[in-house]
Amino acid sequence: MPPARYTYLGPAGTFTEAALRTLPVAAEAELLPHATVAAALDAVRAGEVDGAVVALENSIEGAVSATLDELATGEPLQVRCEVLLAIRFALLVRPGTELAAVATVAGHSHAQPQCKRWLAANLPQARWEAAASNADAARQVAAGAFDAALAGAFAAERYGLTVLAEPVNDVTHAITRFVLVTRPGPSPAPTGVDRTSLVVFIGDDHPGALLELLTEFAVRGVNLTRIESRPTGSGLGRYCFSVDCEGHVQDLRVGEALSALHRISADVRFLGSYPRADGLAPTVRPGTTDAEFREAADWLRRLRATS
Amino acid sequence: MPPARYTYLGPAGTFTEAALRTLPVAAEAELLPHATVAAALDAVRAGEVDGAVVALENSIEGAVSATLDELATGEPLQVRCEVLLAIRFALLVRPGTELAAVATVAGHSHAQPQCKRWLAANLPQARWEAAASNADAARQVAAGAFDAALAGAFAAERYGLTVLAEPVNDVTHAITRFVLVTRPGPSPAPTGVDRTSLVVFIGDDHPGALLELLTEFAVRGVNLTRIESRPTGSGLGRYCFSVDCEGHVQDLRVGEALSALHRISADVRFLGSYPRADGLAPTVRPGTTDAEFREAADWLRRLRATS
Amino acid sequence: MPPARYTYLGPAGTFTEAALRTLPVAAEAELLPHATVAAALDAVRAGEVDGAVVALENSIEGAVSATLDELATGEPLQVRCEVLLAIRFALLVRPGTELAAVATVAGHSHAQPQCKRWLAANLPQARWEAAASNADAARQVAAGAFDAALAGAFAAERYGLTVLAEPVNDVTHAITRFVLVTRPGPSPAPTGVDRTSLVVFIGDDHPGALLELLTEFAVRGVNLTRIESRPTGSGLGRYCFSVDCEGHVQDLRVGEALSALHRISADVRFLGSYPRADGLAPTVRPGTTDAEFREAADWLRRLRATS
Amino acid sequence: MPPARYTYLGPAGTFTEAALRTLPVAAEAELLPHATVAAALDAVRAGEVDGAVVALENSIEGAVSATLDELATGEPLQVRCEVLLAIRFALLVRPGTELAAVATVAGHSHAQPQCKRWLAANLPQARWEAAASNADAARQVAAGAFDAALAGAFAAERYGLTVLAEPVNDVTHAITRFVLVTRPGPSPAPTGVDRTSLVVFIGDDHPGALLELLTEFAVRGVNLTRIESRPTGSGLGRYCFSVDCEGHVQDLRVGEALSALHRISADVRFLGSYPRADGLAPTVRPGTTDAEFREAADWLRRLRATS
Repeated sequence: MPPARYTYLGPAGTFTEAALRTLPVAAEAELLPHATVAAALDAVRAGEVDGAVVALENSIEGAVSATLDELATGEPLQVRCEVLLAIRFALLVRPGTELAAVATVAGHSHAQPQCKRWLAANLPQARWEAAASNADAARQVAAGAFDAALAGAFAAERYGLTVLAEPVNDVTHAITRFVLVTRPGPSPAPTGVDRTSLVVFIGDDHPGALLELLTEFAVRGVNLTRIESRPTGSGLGRYCFSVDCEGHVQDLRVGEALSALHRISADVRFLGSYPRADGLAPTVRPGTTDAEFREAADWLRRLRATS
Repeated sequence: MPPARYTYLGPAGTFTEAALRTLPVAAEAELLPHATVAAALDAVRAGEVDGAVVALENSIEGAVSATLDELATGEPLQVRCEVLLAIRFALLVRPGTELAAVATVAGHSHAQPQCKRWLAANLPQARWEAAASNADAARQVAAGAFDAALAGAFAAERYGLTVLAEPVNDVTHAITRFVLVTRPGPSPAPTGVDRTSLVVFIGDDHPGALLELLTEFAVRGVNLTRIESRPTGSGLGRYCFSVDCEGHVQDLRVGEALSALHRISADVRFLGSYPRADGLAPTVRPGTTDAEFREAADWLRRLRATS
Repeated sequence: MPPARYTYLGPAGTFTEAALRTLPVAAEAELLPHATVAAALDAVRAGEVDGAVVALENSIEGAVSATLDELATGEPLQVRCEVLLAIRFALLVRPGTELAAVATVAGHSHAQPQCKRWLAANLPQARWEAAASNADAARQVAAGAFDAALAGAFAAERYGLTVLAEPVNDVTHAITRFVLVTRPGPSPAPTGVDRTSLVVFIGDDHPGALLELLTEFAVRGVNLTRIESRPTGSGLGRYCFSVDCEGHVQDLRVGEALSALHRISADVRFLGSYPRADGLAPTVRPGTTDAEFREAADWLRRLRATS
Repeated sequence: MPPARYTYLGPAGTFTEAALRTLPVAAEAELLPHATVAAALDAVRAGEVDGAVVALENSIEGAVSATLDELATGEPLQVRCEVLLAIRFALLVRPGTELAAVATVAGHSHAQPQCKRWLAANLPQARWEAAASNADAARQVAAGAFDAALAGAFAAERYGLTVLAEPVNDVTHAITRFVLVTRPGPSPAPTGVDRTSLVVFIGDDHPGALLELLTEFAVRGVNLTRIESRPTGSGLGRYCFSVDCEGHVQDLRVGEALSALHRISADVRFLGSYPRADGLAPTVRPGTTDAEFREAADWLRRLRATS
């Protein structure tokens, strides 16, 4: 049997690659980069790879909107698990370069704001140069185009660079959430500490649409952990909402909420139920546990049968 | 087989008796009065009669709170159908009495406010006397205790009185809603133009309880046609809400709403689903028809089976 | 200066009279009964009396709907204070009557359900007779028409009766809320533990009207303590809501809520702000105190001035 | 007087520069690029330039999150006007290059997904190369690093390239919204067709926070046109919401909503009220016009003065 193959947003040396490498499945697998999130996900759809790791939230590399939009359209895909990665930026230079000699610093456009204060304090004269990705910045430093790159320390070895300082990011607890995406299939069993991702397409764009959507969740005690509105170019409507909520599609409160959204929206795309990487158990409001949903359904069944 | 027996809030000659007489089942049945709503309903519970007609809304005879409270507690009862009766008051006197000779007018305490302007214009000097019911006022007029009674014209014959003027109520479109109550049993089949009555007991009396209750209906597109808060002396909580909503317990949107209320409240008492007497078809919001509920449940079933 | 004059729902000996007598203003005043709530309130409107005490909630004597409807229409009136009265029923008989000799018991139709269990246990054979009021039942017992009356013990002396048993009500903590109503004028100053009463007329009767009304209160942290829907015969609409809420019209959160209701409804009738008799201080949600409202208004004023 | 100076997200040739050039103020001004949104906005804060144009919504160049985060923190800035720009991508090549000779295509990572179908149909063999921006891709094509760039046609002249095909984007109605940002100052006067931008910081991160925020707008009839949740590294809380709504801060319904958000949140940062570029007039719900707010305030003032 050939080894499994997984892809990530490249080039080699990105935080996305680092996230993929934390997964047990990556240990024996072939890992290969794709130049765009779209290309990585299309490779999954085409069956060329078994899965792709992409950033979903708080991205450093600008892939979030792209990820959301790519998951919302095209052949369905499914999130299997999530990885939380603390983002630590290092200043990478060619061996021998000293701080005083750094006149240009390159990195993804999202890297600079995160290291702004460090750069102002330590490299006030250095000129900023945007690169396609942090790894690409490292590659260009190796090629001599710039003096230093903002990237993960793990990128140093790959490009023959050294870590001059680390961490250099101002906010030290920045965390990016990555997900492993595969073709659709059975979800991991509920663990009690799960998350569900979905996309809700608003058919008829009216002012109260978001409030209605939130109410369907709230009334059934399902807490949201992320929501973003995204424009959609399709014929389904002008907006969709990308949503993460607590719980698993097999949880009764989550199922009834999804079912309600299916009724009142143009379309609901299920993106997966999977264990939460942060281990935060949901607060299930009284009246919304599985046992209570089941008991209420029984009560209604008896009521309909006898009266 | 003995004839069916039905009771009503007496004495003979009340609007409640008139409401009962509009029902086809009353034609061949034995009709008998009870002195209180409680006694009438207890007679149903005890199997002494087949059913009772009591006022539920807009009452003329003050029975509404009593009806709501009696239905909310004790052995369960069930509403089978409703009767709308336009309330027309007549001024009943002993044969031969002329308007100029009327010095006292009696009736139930709810009758006077409804005929206030007519009395001020036509009998400005007459003294008002409260009676236990309009029919009782008529009885007392016949006995010579007062000169005139405010009651339905149909009470005249029974007490040997004449109608001196009719209608004498200021608001000419007053309508009272009566219901026929029996022991629990299968509801009439859905007609598409139904009403459902229930009582929701709030276990934990907090400020947002009513808003939560309304939201459970609203989110599923179930419109309320009546809601009243009632204090409750039982151990279940301090308040209950007496509610009428559009639709039938067999309607999926109604069933899910009832089931939700069962989950989040201390108790839900189902009082019956039955055809609306006013024939007003419900406005079923897009996304909440039976077909849409069924399709959404199928979608969720497939989703859970495959992902 | 002539003594003040106050009226109450008569006849003499009702719980309403007992409530009035608990007020300091009643000590030196002339107290006189009216036969109906409407008549009592009209006497206030006409200036014939200085005020009237009427039952507003949990009534024993059936006056509640009448009170709500009378306050909602006609010349405006204002609630000045409230009285909570624990309802204790006594069984009144003519001196010398023993329990075994009681064949008929009379009282207001609302009295019987409250004493149902006691009557079943102690007077299982006695026939119930509805009277226009409990006091009227006592009067009729004195006149020999019935054997016993359900009424307050204070009615015994007035009608020359004796208390055979007390309390005879099944629910021992029944409380009725009465209010003192006068012609409009300055409200009592805020005490921090106040209640505000109002009537909201729904111009355009649509399913979501009640939910909208509740949301206007909830969003500003104003808790309701009572709400009832009442039909209205006027041209303003088909329904009105009679509402009591926590707080005083001078409280900023209450003022903004009232103002909002005024905007979105056909009409708002202010019925008064007055101290709560139960002394329950409101729970004012963070963000809705007067200080926070004031600070936010200042912030907005500065924002509009400078940007 | 020296000419005004405006900056934009560079390098020269970006869509952001094109957006800036549509503004009348740009005609006589000096326009200069900055390498990051952060740098552009800091230049405004430092007074080095009079304003900056940055993408706020639907960005092609990945600047949106950066813009939102930069506006939400640091010294306050203010949006003065907005520009809507239809995004048309062209395929830029060195003069003489034919389609058959294009082996590599470069552009910002957001450009590729938008031109995916065109590329698959016309350049199925070409390799994709991510660049820091579309303009940077064009620069690198001019330098011979790649064969073709995805960029606006206006970038061709600046880099000495030719347009080989246009448009090449699959979705033909992609529109990006840019804003002109300056230091704080008086807003443009209300036009009746305005938009207001703000950031709401959630102090206490609880499940219902977003629903509460939306309700404050909804209850006052203020429609949102965009909402996004953004993580915040500051001590104010873990989340903030970036919001655009209909209307102007001087509109009474908008002012009351902002004031309410100020009360219930950790902080509200006002980002400006300005005319909508799309000219879509708001739908102002009955009960929420300025006239109705004013009338309700007068009513409350009279009520408080007299009762």
